[in-house]
Amino acid sequence: MPDSNYFSSDKPKDECGVFGISATHQDSARQTYFGIFALQHRGQEAAGIAVSDGQKLRMHKDVGLVAQVFSEENISRLEGHLAIGHTRYSTTGSSNRRNVQPMLLETKHGPVALAHNGNLINAVELRKSLMEQGIGFVSTSDTEIMIAMLATANGDTWIDRISNIMPKWKGAYSLVILTTEGVFAARDPWGIRPLTLGRLPGGGYAVASETGALETIGCDSIREVHPGEVVALHQGALIVKQAVPKNAETAKCTFEHVYFSRPDSIWDGKVIHDVRVRLGRQIAIENPIQADVVVPVPDSSIPAALGYSRESGISYDIGLLKNRYIGRTFIQPSQEMRVKDVNLKFNAIESVIKGKRVVVIDDSIVRGTTSKHLVDILRKAGAKEIHFRVTCPPITNSCFMGVDMSSPVELIAHTKGVEEIKKYLQADSLYYLSLNGMMSAIGEEKGYCNACFTGKYPFEIKSHSGKLSFESGLD
Amino acid sequence: MPDSNYFSSDKPKDECGVFGISATHQDSARQTYFGIFALQHRGQEAAGIAVSDGQKLRMHKDVGLVAQVFSEENISRLEGHLAIGHTRYSTTGSSNRRNVQPMLLETKHGPVALAHNGNLINAVELRKSLMEQGIGFVSTSDTEIMIAMLATANGDTWIDRISNIMPKWKGAYSLVILTTEGVFAARDPWGIRPLTLGRLPGGGYAVASETGALETIGCDSIREVHPGEVVALHQGALIVKQAVPKNAETAKCTFEHVYFSRPDSIWDGKVIHDVRVRLGRQIAIENPIQADVVVPVPDSSIPAALGYSRESGISYDIGLLKNRYIGRTFIQPSQEMRVKDVNLKFNAIESVIKGKRVVVIDDSIVRGTTSKHLVDILRKAGAKEIHFRVTCPPITNSCFMGVDMSSPVELIAHTKGVEEIKKYLQADSLYYLSLNGMMSAIGEEKGYCNACFTGKYPFEIKSHSGKLSFESGLD
Amino acid sequence: MPDSNYFSSDKPKDECGVFGISATHQDSARQTYFGIFALQHRGQEAAGIAVSDGQKLRMHKDVGLVAQVFSEENISRLEGHLAIGHTRYSTTGSSNRRNVQPMLLETKHGPVALAHNGNLINAVELRKSLMEQGIGFVSTSDTEIMIAMLATANGDTWIDRISNIMPKWKGAYSLVILTTEGVFAARDPWGIRPLTLGRLPGGGYAVASETGALETIGCDSIREVHPGEVVALHQGALIVKQAVPKNAETAKCTFEHVYFSRPDSIWDGKVIHDVRVRLGRQIAIENPIQADVVVPVPDSSIPAALGYSRESGISYDIGLLKNRYIGRTFIQPSQEMRVKDVNLKFNAIESVIKGKRVVVIDDSIVRGTTSKHLVDILRKAGAKEIHFRVTCPPITNSCFMGVDMSSPVELIAHTKGVEEIKKYLQADSLYYLSLNGMMSAIGEEKGYCNACFTGKYPFEIKSHSGKLSFESGLD
Amino acid sequence: MPDSNYFSSDKPKDECGVFGISATHQDSARQTYFGIFALQHRGQEAAGIAVSDGQKLRMHKDVGLVAQVFSEENISRLEGHLAIGHTRYSTTGSSNRRNVQPMLLETKHGPVALAHNGNLINAVELRKSLMEQGIGFVSTSDTEIMIAMLATANGDTWIDRISNIMPKWKGAYSLVILTTEGVFAARDPWGIRPLTLGRLPGGGYAVASETGALETIGCDSIREVHPGEVVALHQGALIVKQAVPKNAETAKCTFEHVYFSRPDSIWDGKVIHDVRVRLGRQIAIENPIQADVVVPVPDSSIPAALGYSRESGISYDIGLLKNRYIGRTFIQPSQEMRVKDVNLKFNAIESVIKGKRVVVIDDSIVRGTTSKHLVDILRKAGAKEIHFRVTCPPITNSCFMGVDMSSPVELIAHTKGVEEIKKYLQADSLYYLSLNGMMSAIGEEKGYCNACFTGKYPFEIKSHSGKLSFESGLD
Repeated sequence: MPDSNYFSSDKPKDECGVFGISATHQDSARQTYFGIFALQHRGQEAAGIAVSDGQKLRMHKDVGLVAQVFSEENISRLEGHLAIGHTRYSTTGSSNRRNVQPMLLETKHGPVALAHNGNLINAVELRKSLMEQGIGFVSTSDTEIMIAMLATANGDTWIDRISNIMPKWKGAYSLVILTTEGVFAARDPWGIRPLTLGRLPGGGYAVASETGALETIGCDSIREVHPGEVVALHQGALIVKQAVPKNAETAKCTFEHVYFSRPDSIWDGKVIHDVRVRLGRQIAIENPIQADVVVPVPDSSIPAALGYSRESGISYDIGLLKNRYIGRTFIQPSQEMRVKDVNLKFNAIESVIKGKRVVVIDDSIVRGTTSKHLVDILRKAGAKEIHFRVTCPPITNSCFMGVDMSSPVELIAHTKGVEEIKKYLQADSLYYLSLNGMMSAIGEEKGYCNACFTGKYPFEIKSHSGKLSFESGLD
Repeated sequence: MPDSNYFSSDKPKDECGVFGISATHQDSARQTYFGIFALQHRGQEAAGIAVSDGQKLRMHKDVGLVAQVFSEENISRLEGHLAIGHTRYSTTGSSNRRNVQPMLLETKHGPVALAHNGNLINAVELRKSLMEQGIGFVSTSDTEIMIAMLATANGDTWIDRISNIMPKWKGAYSLVILTTEGVFAARDPWGIRPLTLGRLPGGGYAVASETGALETIGCDSIREVHPGEVVALHQGALIVKQAVPKNAETAKCTFEHVYFSRPDSIWDGKVIHDVRVRLGRQIAIENPIQADVVVPVPDSSIPAALGYSRESGISYDIGLLKNRYIGRTFIQPSQEMRVKDVNLKFNAIESVIKGKRVVVIDDSIVRGTTSKHLVDILRKAGAKEIHFRVTCPPITNSCFMGVDMSSPVELIAHTKGVEEIKKYLQADSLYYLSLNGMMSAIGEEKGYCNACFTGKYPFEIKSHSGKLSFESGLD
Repeated sequence: MPDSNYFSSDKPKDECGVFGISATHQDSARQTYFGIFALQHRGQEAAGIAVSDGQKLRMHKDVGLVAQVFSEENISRLEGHLAIGHTRYSTTGSSNRRNVQPMLLETKHGPVALAHNGNLINAVELRKSLMEQGIGFVSTSDTEIMIAMLATANGDTWIDRISNIMPKWKGAYSLVILTTEGVFAARDPWGIRPLTLGRLPGGGYAVASETGALETIGCDSIREVHPGEVVALHQGALIVKQAVPKNAETAKCTFEHVYFSRPDSIWDGKVIHDVRVRLGRQIAIENPIQADVVVPVPDSSIPAALGYSRESGISYDIGLLKNRYIGRTFIQPSQEMRVKDVNLKFNAIESVIKGKRVVVIDDSIVRGTTSKHLVDILRKAGAKEIHFRVTCPPITNSCFMGVDMSSPVELIAHTKGVEEIKKYLQADSLYYLSLNGMMSAIGEEKGYCNACFTGKYPFEIKSHSGKLSFESGLD
Repeated sequence: MPDSNYFSSDKPKDECGVFGISATHQDSARQTYFGIFALQHRGQEAAGIAVSDGQKLRMHKDVGLVAQVFSEENISRLEGHLAIGHTRYSTTGSSNRRNVQPMLLETKHGPVALAHNGNLINAVELRKSLMEQGIGFVSTSDTEIMIAMLATANGDTWIDRISNIMPKWKGAYSLVILTTEGVFAARDPWGIRPLTLGRLPGGGYAVASETGALETIGCDSIREVHPGEVVALHQGALIVKQAVPKNAETAKCTFEHVYFSRPDSIWDGKVIHDVRVRLGRQIAIENPIQADVVVPVPDSSIPAALGYSRESGISYDIGLLKNRYIGRTFIQPSQEMRVKDVNLKFNAIESVIKGKRVVVIDDSIVRGTTSKHLVDILRKAGAKEIHFRVTCPPITNSCFMGVDMSSPVELIAHTKGVEEIKKYLQADSLYYLSLNGMMSAIGEEKGYCNACFTGKYPFEIKSHSGKLSFESGLD
């Protein structure tokens, strides 16, 4: 119920962060803890770690932030040199304990655990077909479908079994898989979600959604898991297999550059921070205006605002302050407080704004509610003019590849043109970065998925390609 | 770790209580709550309720006592006219959240939930065979095997599917099953565990492990679910099918009479309280002695002590007091306190015992530790003579039909004769009721399982017929 | 809100159990744990333990049962040879964390902790006077008043300070007090609530509300703390001082014999179990009738029913079964279930009752609701006649000495005569034990408080002698 | 145990934030919630709110973050038009529940609640003197001393009583006080901690530690509570009394400008953000160097780095990334992970740093451990030169006015000179802003306390002026 929560963020939501490690010591769970800690921005709903000492699998997972789910006591019980971990994104409302990852299953091949970032668009068909074979399901997640398919897979080794199943999965997936034999990583042939490999300082290998998580644990980044590839992480070597041919045209998610990834992460060979600085520069190039100050919407738009400032020569300053804690409150303001537009999420610094022509840099507009609120705050702080700049084109379509963008009818750019949105925001001007401009700032012409801006999906989308739903209300 | 817990009860442990209801109102979860409340003595580890309104299934379950697991808030969210419930027995040590029942599965036939009292002796074979078909498992319980088999079952109706699967199950099972179409009850062809049907005062039907639970919710008891039978509980009628022929010789559990069931329950046509009074009488008949007072070990041996007193003419009194709360503490006494044999579990009432020749009536001796402790307490309270009487024969063998008796090496009568046990207890005399005497007090010559006394199991027992274990340590 | 809770017990409620120990080892908290465990029947709302190693005081307390409040972890942190403990009675509704005992205060004499069983009738005056002196209060309990007075007390030693303050306290109090110098016990000059001394098997002394708690930890009972006495428990000796002259006429609470105390406790030189057997006998003597069976209302009326049976020759049996767990549930039955009078608290054993003339023995009738329910259950189970017998006279007045009896208007005997009550219960006959008969069964003619039966209080009762209330709602 | 926690922040810690409100509606607790939410940076250990409807006081408080302590359920039970709130700073180790604020006391003047930011340096003397009068204490906080003194205060009104007591308090205090009659604010005559008044949009008044909190709830800031003043907040008016003469020389805390306050707060007439920009400029003026990039230590040093960049012309960039969540974890890295200097708290953005001469701007160095770590991270990221700049002088002395700076021996500048510190940090250069430079950036020559830099305290400091300690270990 996004509408009912006054504080729900008006940003696209990535669905998960994954991490895996094959270490030379028995404390791999602790490293996984810090690994998923560094991926906390990719999901705040739930967290889990599964480990193996080569004999057994052990697991701990629960709803909550990483630091809430794990204690010294439960971390220290997770002994073993192999581990995988997961963070899950925050939905409003009650979280479903059954969907928390990793998922663990005893199979004829031994126990297997799996954690997933992405979304299968053929989940409904796959699930139906598995059910027809007599397999039942306890959750609504596509992760359970994937692990159920691993239980039925043929092949002598895990790398074979994973390879044999991968061609049946359609959609976005960046996976980590744990068995008593090792840790495995796999990525869809479109390369939609990121997944990166690293070498551990003390020997062994790690895999993570972002290089920032590898660096956090002191690991050198090596390379990405290639689209369609499955990789076995052994203590002494990486074993690699091209399970599915890489798609002729990859479909990497542009939004990892624009918003999702940490600024210190490197993806597709580019430092995210630097890409964002260039996105800001490109706006200044495409749409030069006269103004007195450029301010970012904290925190993700800071590099773009710096870039804009450098290109335009307009002074950069901190004009908006974000309450770091507000995202986690469930107390709602009274109706009276809402009507009076009190500033619970953002405050303006009046001395920076007053009497100025202000350029505001934001990375995206989804429903538009927060953007409108920001314009209002700046206006009250005395801005003479407010020029709203967005570092990507208008978001007109939903994502089916692992991002929660809201439904099309909630997307303001699905129904309104730029001029109308400007009026809704009550900004003096509004400019969205062009698609070409965005791609040129990223530094690639193709290989990226821009379906949320263009409606051109990397594969055909059917009406049921979204979330699974169930006949039973699981608790 | 039974040895490490000073307070662990030295009694056989029944594994579960089940309850099901098909009502004419939407508040069936509340009635199920009181139904499993009345079965709390059959399991204190965990509890759960699943409901259906004919459209969906909803469930709430957790570790803890019934009153801890359910709150007004979660009960009131469980709306529907169909419900099943479960209580699970208390193991020492950490409870495994994954084994809590009911279990719920989405299948090609729609969602199904199942709760189980018993134990399948062919669980290992069944599980292996399902795994070979590519089905994975998340728990160590035979309940998951049963529900996985229902997902693969053929048949046009649930009653058909259940009937088609039942012949494959070997062992003890008294089941309640919930789908959007109704509540179903099924019982193994040996009739090992009890399962009884009742009519609701407001219309509709209920099923429960014991008649006491039916009576608690104001229900008339009708009859037992017959061995091998499956019953569909509809609001207006019971639909019955003999899924498996009743075994030529049934194998009802004698221990339900001796210890497990509530005294107000009626099983196999006999009031448990009355059976126990007769068990006490029979001891007095078989082994008459001179004494001054007969005292029960509270609470389950009270009716037998009354029977003994009536038959022998020896005065009945309350000589031992049990601390009602002690079973739930996890604080252990210091070594010093143990050595000094302080009375944390039982206290004697000295004025009743002092200078008397005391007959103590207990319903069973498993490991013998508590019995020895009781003799010691009575001795310190000044008993002149202590005559220990047990209302069943020596327990020499483990149970594989849903009762946790301890492993054979822990059973004192597995390794020691009666005379040796008497010496160990330091009692002045010790008498176990004879097998024939016990059966005559029950009022049946055959149709009962007495394997724990005789080693004659109703079916062949293989080395792996006990508990399932896993390669993964689930948390 | 006693009326809103269907399951609230219709019995007088004792307010507390206290325990203190001066040991020769550092594990006194563990012994205190088992001591207050054995006093759990005197209060189920909250529990606490304070210890001292002679240097500092440490404390742990919380709402909940003793076994819920304490864990191995928090018990093991409470090191020291001196300890006191407390259990608090269960009110319905939310418990006030601020009233949990012991209370601990830093004073000019060093830190002091206090735990209390009883009620000061001059609490309002004392509190007002302390407030006039500028002392503030954080709770609504008279315990805080007592400890605040100890902080202001004169005297060179704690035994002097306690002695100097005791004359100012009017009402019932049985106290344990902990300082870095030792454990102290004190009792009001009327001797209203029990308080008993014992010698520890390993050296040192203990004090407890009941001898049953002393016996639980393996302690020999020595004697009661005399009315008006303060006792210092040292490892090697007891130091005793008569702080206030014992009142000419003591006012021991009769209800400790009738209902509150454990049957194995000895009070005023009498074994509670034996007193209760005599109470039952006395009813049979005073009011002989023809009947087929005598059944107790479990659990507290069992000895009295035995006594009645022995005197009358009418057969004793177990005809009513109590659900042991029901007292802790907060789920309420639906209105429909209430109207149909389903048996959530008690079940009858039909085979014992059917066609019989039944004598039911209960220890008291407060509001009458449960008694009426019992008559109804027995009637439905087929009783031919129901003769209700109560082992004390009608309760017509409230208690102001530490017992919660309900307000006078709720007491059925405050407004109705015996004949009317019989009609209300729909019993065939009703008999209350006479005051003289009760005292003769107890074996004393005077020295007891029978104010709840007679309205003759041991001291003048003013309108505000009851509970303290506050201008602030503390949470 | 600051050393044992790898993640403990190496920053001075402010002790609290306070908030008070007198509203025209009954939902003042909800506004107080958002008020203390906005002050969360001043204390993360515990939070509490007390309200009054003019008749009673109600309170809820607990350890944890504001959003953890309060739920919709407990906020909605706190009805009334008067409220005060408090956040408390985060100590490592277990938090003492007894010290959580507000504190509430029933007194002869009625109930009173108090919340406090600061530290009394004469707490030991005051407490001893109160104890001599027979007053006991339950906590170790000076807040309890203050409220105990209010209970003994003379005067016909609360404003009189507060005024009469204030002269006895020596040290730093910014207080909010709640009674049934109103909300009161008081500030020490040195004006050490901030305290600001605001007008509510819907009528009524509020008071808060910072203007940022007033603005958050939509309130206009009016003026500070003057040093030595007590203010009564009424719905229609403010009543003001100069309880103690303002000290000839005020002693406002410089560190509120340098580090503690929110950048959007206005204190002493200056916008904190602007002061910090000037602090950065001043460093560039005092100590010009050649460099390629200036990076802030996030988050508090961002404005200073901007100022430095503007003054020096050296490009500003984001070179260090802080893990937002790390402060709350209690999982410690393994020894191996520590030795390898893995980057759990900060990551560098290599593309910004590599090959560059880097100026790092930080607001303070306390123990120096984090600073050394940052230099190391930047060095590993390829910085050619690292010039560490601090926006205040070396901290050589502890604070006794409500800030936790660590003990003198832990302060690196207490024992080492600047050259030595530079060597310890392994920076290429190190410069601390001069005292005069800092004050000129702030814009005041006097009226500020700089004791932590100079050792010149506003009043004589005795050996016991720090924290209170107790003979009892309270739990």
